[in-house]
Amino acid sequence: MGRKIGILCGGGDAPGLNAVIRAVVKFGVGRLGWELWGLEDSFDGLLSEPQRVRRLTPLSCRGILQQGGTILGTTNRGDPFHSRDGQDRSAEVARRVRDRGLEGLIMIGGDGTMRIARDLADRTGIRVVGVPKTIDNDLGATDLTFGFQSAVDCASDALDRLHSTAEAHDRVIVLEVMGRDAGWIALHAAISGGADLCVIPEVPWSAERLCAKVKERGKLGRPFSLAIVAEGAGDPTHPGSAGRAVAEAIQAGVPGCDVRITVLGHLQRGGSPVAFDRLLATRFGVGAVDLVEAGRWGELVALHNGRIEGVPIAEAVAVYRKVDPEGELVRTARMVGIELGG
Amino acid sequence: MGRKIGILCGGGDAPGLNAVIRAVVKFGVGRLGWELWGLEDSFDGLLSEPQRVRRLTPLSCRGILQQGGTILGTTNRGDPFHSRDGQDRSAEVARRVRDRGLEGLIMIGGDGTMRIARDLADRTGIRVVGVPKTIDNDLGATDLTFGFQSAVDCASDALDRLHSTAEAHDRVIVLEVMGRDAGWIALHAAISGGADLCVIPEVPWSAERLCAKVKERGKLGRPFSLAIVAEGAGDPTHPGSAGRAVAEAIQAGVPGCDVRITVLGHLQRGGSPVAFDRLLATRFGVGAVDLVEAGRWGELVALHNGRIEGVPIAEAVAVYRKVDPEGELVRTARMVGIELGG
Amino acid sequence: MGRKIGILCGGGDAPGLNAVIRAVVKFGVGRLGWELWGLEDSFDGLLSEPQRVRRLTPLSCRGILQQGGTILGTTNRGDPFHSRDGQDRSAEVARRVRDRGLEGLIMIGGDGTMRIARDLADRTGIRVVGVPKTIDNDLGATDLTFGFQSAVDCASDALDRLHSTAEAHDRVIVLEVMGRDAGWIALHAAISGGADLCVIPEVPWSAERLCAKVKERGKLGRPFSLAIVAEGAGDPTHPGSAGRAVAEAIQAGVPGCDVRITVLGHLQRGGSPVAFDRLLATRFGVGAVDLVEAGRWGELVALHNGRIEGVPIAEAVAVYRKVDPEGELVRTARMVGIELGG
Amino acid sequence: MGRKIGILCGGGDAPGLNAVIRAVVKFGVGRLGWELWGLEDSFDGLLSEPQRVRRLTPLSCRGILQQGGTILGTTNRGDPFHSRDGQDRSAEVARRVRDRGLEGLIMIGGDGTMRIARDLADRTGIRVVGVPKTIDNDLGATDLTFGFQSAVDCASDALDRLHSTAEAHDRVIVLEVMGRDAGWIALHAAISGGADLCVIPEVPWSAERLCAKVKERGKLGRPFSLAIVAEGAGDPTHPGSAGRAVAEAIQAGVPGCDVRITVLGHLQRGGSPVAFDRLLATRFGVGAVDLVEAGRWGELVALHNGRIEGVPIAEAVAVYRKVDPEGELVRTARMVGIELGG
Repeated sequence: MGRKIGILCGGGDAPGLNAVIRAVVKFGVGRLGWELWGLEDSFDGLLSEPQRVRRLTPLSCRGILQQGGTILGTTNRGDPFHSRDGQDRSAEVARRVRDRGLEGLIMIGGDGTMRIARDLADRTGIRVVGVPKTIDNDLGATDLTFGFQSAVDCASDALDRLHSTAEAHDRVIVLEVMGRDAGWIALHAAISGGADLCVIPEVPWSAERLCAKVKERGKLGRPFSLAIVAEGAGDPTHPGSAGRAVAEAIQAGVPGCDVRITVLGHLQRGGSPVAFDRLLATRFGVGAVDLVEAGRWGELVALHNGRIEGVPIAEAVAVYRKVDPEGELVRTARMVGIELGG
Repeated sequence: MGRKIGILCGGGDAPGLNAVIRAVVKFGVGRLGWELWGLEDSFDGLLSEPQRVRRLTPLSCRGILQQGGTILGTTNRGDPFHSRDGQDRSAEVARRVRDRGLEGLIMIGGDGTMRIARDLADRTGIRVVGVPKTIDNDLGATDLTFGFQSAVDCASDALDRLHSTAEAHDRVIVLEVMGRDAGWIALHAAISGGADLCVIPEVPWSAERLCAKVKERGKLGRPFSLAIVAEGAGDPTHPGSAGRAVAEAIQAGVPGCDVRITVLGHLQRGGSPVAFDRLLATRFGVGAVDLVEAGRWGELVALHNGRIEGVPIAEAVAVYRKVDPEGELVRTARMVGIELGG
Repeated sequence: MGRKIGILCGGGDAPGLNAVIRAVVKFGVGRLGWELWGLEDSFDGLLSEPQRVRRLTPLSCRGILQQGGTILGTTNRGDPFHSRDGQDRSAEVARRVRDRGLEGLIMIGGDGTMRIARDLADRTGIRVVGVPKTIDNDLGATDLTFGFQSAVDCASDALDRLHSTAEAHDRVIVLEVMGRDAGWIALHAAISGGADLCVIPEVPWSAERLCAKVKERGKLGRPFSLAIVAEGAGDPTHPGSAGRAVAEAIQAGVPGCDVRITVLGHLQRGGSPVAFDRLLATRFGVGAVDLVEAGRWGELVALHNGRIEGVPIAEAVAVYRKVDPEGELVRTARMVGIELGG
Repeated sequence: MGRKIGILCGGGDAPGLNAVIRAVVKFGVGRLGWELWGLEDSFDGLLSEPQRVRRLTPLSCRGILQQGGTILGTTNRGDPFHSRDGQDRSAEVARRVRDRGLEGLIMIGGDGTMRIARDLADRTGIRVVGVPKTIDNDLGATDLTFGFQSAVDCASDALDRLHSTAEAHDRVIVLEVMGRDAGWIALHAAISGGADLCVIPEVPWSAERLCAKVKERGKLGRPFSLAIVAEGAGDPTHPGSAGRAVAEAIQAGVPGCDVRITVLGHLQRGGSPVAFDRLLATRFGVGAVDLVEAGRWGELVALHNGRIEGVPIAEAVAVYRKVDPEGELVRTARMVGIELGG
């Protein structure tokens, strides 16, 4: 008889979630004979009546590798310590996990989900293996997460599209992308999409410097510019505020300038994951099964220097990866003519 | 000695403009020996000092078939009857056209550009052949224009992306697309992208009907919906207002609903044209050369029942194609379960 | 009680089959209350033991609009008059259709499938409504079929890719695409992808003319060329033979030339349908339901001058649409510098 | 006065070459004031009469970031030690480099180009900085090269397309991809594209094992399979031979099986580079300028554990990266059910 394991997705969706689930099913169920149960909409599925928990088999995973979203659903409101009605329902979660005979859970999620994983282990004894997910790529525990490259491709493709229309109309177009605390998506896409300006939370920006760049381009016969702005460079609770702030600063500082804003929003999360993310997500899924098989509960799958490893979830929580304003990537951006505003 | 002809793009950019220019160059210059002059940024290039007008040769067109935007630039402010300083500079345009020895102009543009073409002919005697361009596909003179299908593909692809994130998070996502007076892009994309709701200017919408659809889906176990909204269904002078109006109506009418908005904006105009538009644009370019060669000045290239024809510009102006609320396409949308709100 | 109807796909797959099925389900089942049965792998599903026939509901169609292939499967060997064992099993087909209480069948397929539909009606009395499917776009009964535009996009995109490598290496690259009897895909893609040579079954080609074009380009400083070749321009029973014949002719006729071949093959059939095909397929599906509801058995859905109509299947069989060597499209190709070899 | 430097591309083209050139221009010319000369078609441009060598400025690089191919051209036959006429023309190359006052060359290329770089330095004293380029990702000197990820995406996308047609028709489809000595593309794409079989040069394959997998899938109700095969798993001098060998083995070993082959060929090299490659190529370009500025002639830019570094060209030559048959990636493939045949 194989193990009985549960699996869930917490937090926002990211391209590659299905690839993780598929890898766990293919390896855990297909080769090791696990009985794998998927919790729908994170802990909501376990806590609802009737429970929304379903058995995952190779059949459940047909054709999902290339699909965005997640077949299990996810939610940003799945914290059992502070459930929808304000109650701490963690004890109930633990009881239901045990009633189902689940040896432990594979929890795919970001920093918030990993805190829950740590606290569930500490307070209820539920055993968890974590898989890191953050489209912003800002988890310090791993060099990279799946979904990030798909978001960069989406943003870079948007810059390609905006480039032709900015050039045709002599406009400044400001593209706001994801990145609440870290500017990875903006910075990667700025370089790969050939932006002229890039504003990220890690580098305080001055309107003068941004405007100077736009004016300089105008003098060189390039009366248009593309600016990419991480949402976290503005007020992160208001999507669009960072882009708007930059747009208004340029509009005010460059007379006669025609500035437009595009907010990429949810387009970055959806769609089929790029090959890079499908591979990384599959490696994470296989790595999570390995951790379970090795009894390394309480660990998180991570990529370090190209290798898949396990790190303690407790150590991984609240350690963020930010763009180094003095690092090679920022310097590369500057050397190819991108103005960061600071 | 070949003819001397000018060419320009007026109004907003659209995927396929370069394909028109390329076809005119390949046919007119390459086969017929024309001397072809491109006016940069529409009449602005002709009126500026020094003039920004350049000779177009097959070399100018290398690699542009797949590029968005336009190598000639364009502008929404190129009306010589009401130029930037408020003056009527049409006489100057005419003089400069004659000074350059241009027999006539090929003007690529939408309704506004065609009015200018008509008035230039009437008042100054400049000879014009028109090529219709409207990404909204709302020109009555032609069954189809280039750029439209690229915009539909972009919007349909956005729906594909949003679908997975709407489903993962049980959200209603409202996508606002172009379509100032006509809902063609929204309607085509709604059907091809599998939207649940579609709001267009031609069909007055009621909040009740939209909300009823969202609720009905929730009862069927589909607690998420995708709505696509033409910008013209709201206040067309404020991009985003149509989407916002629909989003607020749903938010107000469906308790507990999590509604998000995405405005596709300039992404629809940019990027490489899809094959369909490249072909249509090439046919239009060849057709424009044919009209010039036949001396059919004052005519516009048009597609009628699959054939390229010429129609008088004067007759074509201000005749719009709108979605027929009782037509086959709207009925198709309804029959596959799309709620139009009215 | 609603009608009981069967549905199947015959012949090769094409992007958009799922969109047809989905539209029939959404309209027929969702709005009209039909009981709809899908025959798997065409008549094979009906003739196998146990039968592979499954009920189709809105649930069966979730997420399939954007998927290539067909959820019903298909086969080129599903002719009940000449089944796999050589027997005429049409009577058995008819009996099983009746035993299941099916009022009639919606058959999606090409010319071969429509012959079967006609013969089944004539000889067994089974009632059929047809939906035309031919990726080659060579059915005379309809102006257009779904799947074609997706194949053109795939071929045009391949030309874009090959262009950069041909140019970088001064090569002639020959791309063989589908088109057994008609060169529609090759011709459309040649124009939209900017090919230099285009070989189609309708225009006999001479090696001299093809080589002359390659040499002429070399003299103009363009020592590379892209040729697109319809498979039917060679020996259609050997995929790759047309491309090979053209490649060998150029290699022999242009000394020092470096010629390479790429056969696009099945890549053209797969993948997500483009928006254009999803819309057309949806319209066909709705149209098929309309024909059934109107009792117009024996008819085929068709597109004529932009309108969906029904035409008798018997009249539609064996009427092909070929490229007119003197028509506007061939002339357009020539005018933009594409050599057709004849 | 700035430095005078030359730049060239050797060997086959790869997506990202233009991004390297652009970065060298933006940084070297734009910020450091270099005079940069591009050799067209590698050393051929320098050796031809008149020389085809052109000055590169920011203007030369407009819009090339997203273009495949290379604006400089490239050639597989550019070895000055064994030029087209069999002569050693390295002395002439050196003389012409000196006549032009070039301080040194930036050579972008693969193993062959790096040998030439080493020998030029050794025998003629020409100073060279290298940028590694191999779409197969098989250079031991660097963890990754640009172009590889674009090729993987292309192959993975092809698997997505072939999946639907294989499934619809119950076929085995064999996709041959690049990889002369190493199976990186095949292995990455197999995992990200969900192949069932993957044949690479590093793992000797047995027909029995491949056929057993196909049969096993048939028994599980999956009567179709996708196989991806690196060209180097067959006779590398005959493109298509590896795919054909695998296809014939399966055809022979699985009775009743319908096997088809698709050779991806040059499609993998062309097209716009994915964002990942554009970024890596830009980092390489900036790194090459840094090496020149630091006077570190004789070194190659390389990526090691996420950092850009310089390594001696002489040490880098003929050190290959192959897939480790016992490594994590191969194991990952096996754990998600991919049969490698050995």
